Amino acid sequence: MVFSSKLIENAVNEFSKLPGIGRKTALRMVLHLLKLNEEEVDGFADAVSKMRREIRFCNQCHNISDTETCEVCSNPGRNRSQICVVENIRDVIAIESTQQYSGLYHVLGGILSPLDGVGPEQLQIASLVQRVRQTDVKEVVMALSPNIEGDTTVYYIARQLSGSGVSLTTIARGIAFGGELEYADEMTLARSIARRLPIENYVNGVG
Amino acid sequence: MVFSSKLIENAVNEFSKLPGIGRKTALRMVLHLLKLNEEEVDGFADAVSKMRREIRFCNQCHNISDTETCEVCSNPGRNRSQICVVENIRDVIAIESTQQYSGLYHVLGGILSPLDGVGPEQLQIASLVQRVRQTDVKEVVMALSPNIEGDTTVYYIARQLSGSGVSLTTIARGIAFGGELEYADEMTLARSIARRLPIENYVNGVG
Repeated sequence: MVFSSKLIENAVNEFSKLPGIGRKTALRMVLHLLKLNEEEVDGFADAVSKMRREIRFCNQCHNISDTETCEVCSNPGRNRSQICVVENIRDVIAIESTQQYSGLYHVLGGILSPLDGVGPEQLQIASLVQRVRQTDVKEVVMALSPNIEGDTTVYYIARQLSGSGVSLTTIARGIAFGGELEYADEMTLARSIARRLPIENYVNGVG
Repeated sequence: MVFSSKLIENAVNEFSKLPGIGRKTALRMVLHLLKLNEEEVDGFADAVSKMRREIRFCNQCHNISDTETCEVCSNPGRNRSQICVVENIRDVIAIESTQQYSGLYHVLGGILSPLDGVGPEQLQIASLVQRVRQTDVKEVVMALSPNIEGDTTVYYIARQLSGSGVSLTTIARGIAFGGELEYADEMTLARSIARRLPIENYVNGVG
């Protein structure tokens, strides 16, 4: 694309660095912003740079936070006997959006993947073990991706926590709501048959 | 979506105002920006607000410009006897990207559409007529959308320019390159048969 304006070109270049944004989409965004007034565009730009400058990681659970300790960890209404272990902040947002979980979190910052050079030292595993041993945690819920790396990470953490007396659980796997049986992969289908539930549990379940 | 950070929430809100961006895509962009360092994110934000604050419209052709007169109008290498009339700045970018046109432009800022309340006064038509009468223009190329509004605008401008001695042309309509005959609409197909070209023109054409 040939622009007769360096200002436009720079803005399009910046937008096309974003994931999934090509130059045509970037141009559409830039032309949209051109139609807004200066205050609105400054509001956009300020929100972005302020976020990057002021964001922190919670000193308890390593979730993103506006303050030293995040909103979840500093909320007295949360159940402090539960810690849900997740890979990243996106998972925290997903689980919080269900409004079905009232415990605390622990963000690992990834999962074990020796092939990619991610070992236990690269993740927040030591701090999880410390939290479990030093605070009054009764249950650690593993909510990691259902793949080999996720299972390896669950296994590694389980070993680290052995002898701590904490109860270890994992989120349920199975056929997704609205999912068609015939399109489910064999592994998921096999597991969901092996771990079948009595109908009464199903009816009384969280839905 | 539930965010435990106001900073993230504000940034996601701002991104989801962009055209075609839902909240999930906005979150993906925000999390991508979080991974960059502060300077890179400031670069992004500055490019956006600087663009909006400093952009102008060329005093000759009304194209967007970094300076009072745009790069095209102030380029001594451009052919000053041709003016290409387009609806908006996106069309200028599209035509410039073909690198097949070396004349000047005139950006109308829309097309005539009485139903939407767009009359000649809302568009840069008077300034086009003035440019044609006051400068040494020999040809005005109409490059407007091939629909009723576009045709009405072409007709209106043609009447305004009658007697000026300028030659009026319009860009060719026809089957697009790579287009399949059977999927072309009847109007386009009918016009492209009516205005068929001798094969030699086709072979020697610009391609």
